[in-house]
Amino acid sequence: MSDTAFPIITMTTDFGYKDPFIAEMKGVILSINRNASIIDLTHDIQTFNIDEAAFVINSSYKYFPDGSLHIVVIDPGVGSSRRAMIIRSDKHYFVGPDNGVFSLILNGDKLARCVEIANAKYVLKMQSPTFQGRDIFAPAAAWLSSGVDLSEIGPEIEDPTLIAFPIPQISEAGLTGEVIYVDRFGNAITNITERDLAKIGDDWVMQLEGLIPTLSKYYSELQIGKLGCLVNSSGHLEIFSYRGSAAALFNVGIGNRIVVSAASKLR
Amino acid sequence: MSDTAFPIITMTTDFGYKDPFIAEMKGVILSINRNASIIDLTHDIQTFNIDEAAFVINSSYKYFPDGSLHIVVIDPGVGSSRRAMIIRSDKHYFVGPDNGVFSLILNGDKLARCVEIANAKYVLKMQSPTFQGRDIFAPAAAWLSSGVDLSEIGPEIEDPTLIAFPIPQISEAGLTGEVIYVDRFGNAITNITERDLAKIGDDWVMQLEGLIPTLSKYYSELQIGKLGCLVNSSGHLEIFSYRGSAAALFNVGIGNRIVVSAASKLR
Amino acid sequence: MSDTAFPIITMTTDFGYKDPFIAEMKGVILSINRNASIIDLTHDIQTFNIDEAAFVINSSYKYFPDGSLHIVVIDPGVGSSRRAMIIRSDKHYFVGPDNGVFSLILNGDKLARCVEIANAKYVLKMQSPTFQGRDIFAPAAAWLSSGVDLSEIGPEIEDPTLIAFPIPQISEAGLTGEVIYVDRFGNAITNITERDLAKIGDDWVMQLEGLIPTLSKYYSELQIGKLGCLVNSSGHLEIFSYRGSAAALFNVGIGNRIVVSAASKLR
Repeated sequence: MSDTAFPIITMTTDFGYKDPFIAEMKGVILSINRNASIIDLTHDIQTFNIDEAAFVINSSYKYFPDGSLHIVVIDPGVGSSRRAMIIRSDKHYFVGPDNGVFSLILNGDKLARCVEIANAKYVLKMQSPTFQGRDIFAPAAAWLSSGVDLSEIGPEIEDPTLIAFPIPQISEAGLTGEVIYVDRFGNAITNITERDLAKIGDDWVMQLEGLIPTLSKYYSELQIGKLGCLVNSSGHLEIFSYRGSAAALFNVGIGNRIVVSAASKLR
Repeated sequence: MSDTAFPIITMTTDFGYKDPFIAEMKGVILSINRNASIIDLTHDIQTFNIDEAAFVINSSYKYFPDGSLHIVVIDPGVGSSRRAMIIRSDKHYFVGPDNGVFSLILNGDKLARCVEIANAKYVLKMQSPTFQGRDIFAPAAAWLSSGVDLSEIGPEIEDPTLIAFPIPQISEAGLTGEVIYVDRFGNAITNITERDLAKIGDDWVMQLEGLIPTLSKYYSELQIGKLGCLVNSSGHLEIFSYRGSAAALFNVGIGNRIVVSAASKLR
Repeated sequence: MSDTAFPIITMTTDFGYKDPFIAEMKGVILSINRNASIIDLTHDIQTFNIDEAAFVINSSYKYFPDGSLHIVVIDPGVGSSRRAMIIRSDKHYFVGPDNGVFSLILNGDKLARCVEIANAKYVLKMQSPTFQGRDIFAPAAAWLSSGVDLSEIGPEIEDPTLIAFPIPQISEAGLTGEVIYVDRFGNAITNITERDLAKIGDDWVMQLEGLIPTLSKYYSELQIGKLGCLVNSSGHLEIFSYRGSAAALFNVGIGNRIVVSAASKLR
């Protein structure tokens, strides 16, 4: 599969950093492919939060080289009958449970190919129904990274699980969206993207629960203590407070409703 | 020692992720062996908790390839006269203080070979009595990984320090054990293993401080909010609450006593 | 630049471990130089704390092999007109904002060479003014690690930003210094070094807000619960409490004033 001596495998989980779970997965990968270059994407996804993981992997995978593999294990249904899956999309591979965590990847690529991890050759012989990250996803990704063809892993999946994500609505009043992620600085990221904003034109005003954040280009442009907004590094409209936490100071959080209107409409 | 171009060195410490201590150890390792592949096992062992580290390294090392080296630094006696040690056991190497942290490894392998890190050639010239992870364990592991023979490192240790671990007791009433670890999901892992349970037979009931957790195969089999138990991914009896924290919701913690009885005895 | 097949790039940021920011930087690096060996120095620098980062990178870089590159992103002014910079000093390279975070490196090496990251060939084409770690520092470091010459990156900087650090003062009474860092064990590190102490002689007494910590060689020499001091593994005078946190138990923190006097003066 990979044309490189050191294939990249990223890991995104809700396992945290306290326990040895991530390391056991890495041990399994390196036992199969010693040349794999393993990168932690994050292990601090909120426990069982499939939506958060779906957003994070969809924003971040594109910064890795073509041919990279991305394991995502946010898996409340581990051990049940939910399927284990590999997706090939946009020259990247995604490995994880078929529970909707790859919805944004699949929505963005109608030609993506999904395969069930079914061939017993490419998973561990001893399997625990409580840790399929180690026993199924890690070995399948490692075998894929070492040259096994996708078609050998298992049969095609025609109906992967898709979950609905809040999509910005456009109306006479403007764009309506919501906060979908809060980062460690307390910046609140919305589901409104640069592409959505283009529909409103160049001159717009954002409103958040009665507040009007000041439009900025970069963080330090704003006075300390004020609330601002900008288009962030993943192309999303983001609410921030310079050298402060918008989340803490202005009580901004996931689910908060955002309205963006053409400035002309407000005058 | 190693037959591979990229020898694996894992690190288990109580250093946490805030300070640059782990990175300094990695710098020392890479200064000696640039091809070492370093994997963090965990750095969130509770400060000075030798028992926890002993359990974690014994559960996890076996997922790494034969020939891997495992540095473990939980070392309240750093700088004192306690010895620095390398163990060869089960085709793996273990590097750390001789303070009992390798007791479970040594209990499980009567043929393990222990060597004191004594040869000044294989440790840093400048040594601080407060950070032997960086000045002694990291360089010794790196030299070993680059082909130095164990016998060159120092003399054999015949009497490695062993600490006693709570062992499940079997009696007329059944198996008595205890909780020895709580993971980030709030799952409570006991010292009772699959092998212990086999002595009780197929049909058993577990009791924990008056509660009877429902026996499950996997987490999502249980209703949200209930207390369950299952044999977990390391072969240990584990107490959990699906999509909740057994530790938080049912006040389960390290040291809690567990009794497992044949179901026939209870009827 | 580098004479090795696997050049080392370390990363020091205030990004924390929750978000995918660090991973995106690693993806960018590996897209440019697949052989880079990336080591996390720490990502838990206190948000925007340039002083803390300056201390940490200056203490830690020397444990890495000559030729290593060190990216440091503590950057409250990201996107503003502050310059992006590479420094060559002491056979190491440092990459980050020109905001004073490299002051201690530059103070220690009058021959250090500073270059502005100006050549558009060596940064990402699409640039966000809010995440220059990913779009400027990561690619510049990766290109440098893959053999690009420093002079190709941009013009020399003759006036790098320097910030003043608290320097121990010597007087009739002795050495006066302060606490500059507290580690995860609650140990308080001061700005007084072994070299400063040599000026006072062998027999000295330290005072901290009315307390006199007991001078020790290593931690476990002290009784549990007592306050001690020692010269630590980075050559700094450090205040500790064995198996406890000096910070929590004795309320020791950054900025606390320290006085070290010759014992003869106190008698």
